Amino acid sequence: MPKTPLPPGSTIGILGGGQLARMLSVAASRLGIKTYIYADEAAAPAFAVASDRTVGAYDDEQAVAAFAGKVAVVTCEFENVPAKALEVAARAAQVLPPAKSFAVAQDRLAEKDFVAGLGIPVAPYAAVETLDELRAALTRLKLPALLKTRRLGYDGKGQVPIRDAGEAGSTWHAIHGVPAVLESMVRFEREVSVIAVRGRGGEIRFYDPVENVHQDGILAISRVPAAIPPSSTVEARRIAGAIAEALGHVGVIAIEMFEREDGSLVINEFAPRVHNSGHWTIDACLVSQFENHVRAICGWPLGDTGRHSDAVMTNLIGADIDKWRELAAEPGTSVHLYGKTEARPGRKMGHVTRLSPKS
Amino acid sequence: MPKTPLPPGSTIGILGGGQLARMLSVAASRLGIKTYIYADEAAAPAFAVASDRTVGAYDDEQAVAAFAGKVAVVTCEFENVPAKALEVAARAAQVLPPAKSFAVAQDRLAEKDFVAGLGIPVAPYAAVETLDELRAALTRLKLPALLKTRRLGYDGKGQVPIRDAGEAGSTWHAIHGVPAVLESMVRFEREVSVIAVRGRGGEIRFYDPVENVHQDGILAISRVPAAIPPSSTVEARRIAGAIAEALGHVGVIAIEMFEREDGSLVINEFAPRVHNSGHWTIDACLVSQFENHVRAICGWPLGDTGRHSDAVMTNLIGADIDKWRELAAEPGTSVHLYGKTEARPGRKMGHVTRLSPKS
Repeated sequence: MPKTPLPPGSTIGILGGGQLARMLSVAASRLGIKTYIYADEAAAPAFAVASDRTVGAYDDEQAVAAFAGKVAVVTCEFENVPAKALEVAARAAQVLPPAKSFAVAQDRLAEKDFVAGLGIPVAPYAAVETLDELRAALTRLKLPALLKTRRLGYDGKGQVPIRDAGEAGSTWHAIHGVPAVLESMVRFEREVSVIAVRGRGGEIRFYDPVENVHQDGILAISRVPAAIPPSSTVEARRIAGAIAEALGHVGVIAIEMFEREDGSLVINEFAPRVHNSGHWTIDACLVSQFENHVRAICGWPLGDTGRHSDAVMTNLIGADIDKWRELAAEPGTSVHLYGKTEARPGRKMGHVTRLSPKS
Repeated sequence: MPKTPLPPGSTIGILGGGQLARMLSVAASRLGIKTYIYADEAAAPAFAVASDRTVGAYDDEQAVAAFAGKVAVVTCEFENVPAKALEVAARAAQVLPPAKSFAVAQDRLAEKDFVAGLGIPVAPYAAVETLDELRAALTRLKLPALLKTRRLGYDGKGQVPIRDAGEAGSTWHAIHGVPAVLESMVRFEREVSVIAVRGRGGEIRFYDPVENVHQDGILAISRVPAAIPPSSTVEARRIAGAIAEALGHVGVIAIEMFEREDGSLVINEFAPRVHNSGHWTIDACLVSQFENHVRAICGWPLGDTGRHSDAVMTNLIGADIDKWRELAAEPGTSVHLYGKTEARPGRKMGHVTRLSPKS
């Protein structure tokens, strides 16, 4: 990896053009860094704040190669980039985070094996390739459980609950019989996530742990500080640091965890990218997760992850966006709209952050 | 003026493509508003974060008309837009702030007459059209004084100090004998500015007054809170409100004042736009001056102008930019670089904001 940082005026490439790429572009602009967005839809939200843009399929190798040839570093706003696209891009530019972060995060089985292999607690799980294997796993693991496809899951997609072994057939059918992981559901007090950023030289910084509330499998609310004891904060950071380190990760990484009644933490999953549960950092920190991701991949010194305020971030999902006028008039509230034209149910259209003095 | 706000997804036009337009674009993106930038140089910093861009002269009426025809509202990042451009734009789109704000701010004599006409204190001044008038004015006004061209002044440009009546000829020569204003220098304790924002419906909000330090006629440092008594804060806001109201202004307006030893305030000048002394609001407020300008011209509810932290903003002028790595590594500091390629002496290349807990 080059030792010198990318100077102001450089252009970074981003695969993906959604709200994460949009907020990355804005953060890059603060550093005098331009962005070139590659997205598969003409109405990509990030195009509105980018220097350059290409509309293309992520498996269009020629187009991806041409894009990578015009930038110094390529990064991604989502973890499910085709491995081939990353490989093609890597021939022309540096790709960060490194391929390993994507390879592990793209496959729920690899992810669980990886985390468990580090001695970090995960929910009991079993690999499942056939209906017979699912039936066998259901006799070993405690119910209720979740059957999750190994690939292409996010926002609760690609996972089906199983409450009774008799549901094996219907559940297997529901996930179209693709390779999967069966996982016991963890009883937890609260969902917590930690956003960490790791630099090119291995330095690592953490934002304060966040408490998350999901609805229908989609993040609804993130709250900071999380109502967890200081020992859990220390442990959450230790875990996040161990995962980032073992991956050789560069950039932001988000680790989702469950806090159990006894205060212990169990890893749910991680995302090798900026994360919805870190959006509060735009308003409550001097340097946001987005800016720190850009700093990391550009080899800049990492920015201050300290927090000047308490924050509650609430997603605007689907028709929630219709309330934009009322939200914009609320004191102590900042509104972030992603510029998406169609407010489909379940679609993240924006978020609001409410700040209060640091407790 | 239309009663309904511009909905998310709308595009606003900005005349000017420097750092102010760049930060306006970024702020607009938070609201789901796109920007179309019209600038007279191909390397305009704002182009990197805009949806659409045109390179054209500000007096190219056809190009300005075409630009205005594609947006809902036109605004400006600088006050010295040719009146003709504003007139042409106004035929195709709403132009905000309104023409009166520009007309008054573009002419130092009109500005002083306007402010003085509101009963607000200004430094003693005299209109000067000829060398004889300058000589006559020098006998009436207290020295030292400043001879300022009526038009096209900013960052200390277009003004020359006069310490002795014998300098009349050389000073008149220095400003090329254009229409001017002679103004007695005010002895002051500190320079203060107030950033106000006025909405389309006349509602008005203020950021906390700022203490400014200039070097070589260019803003060097802005500090908030300003070390002024509460009564001066009340008075500074009253003055800012009276000026905005009398102009029928819509958008952000910045009023620069001198605080004299006795605590009284004297108006120096105002700028009918976002202002360098308000850059700290990006980091220390939930809603920045840039976002509030966009909200105002789009008819949105004004955003919270409250401040969660104390702040010191330091401009990076010319070669200061070379220290970007060290600055980026400083805790408690956020770095803002404008993406300008050439670091000429006196050129504003970026700024840093240092936050501390609210005092």
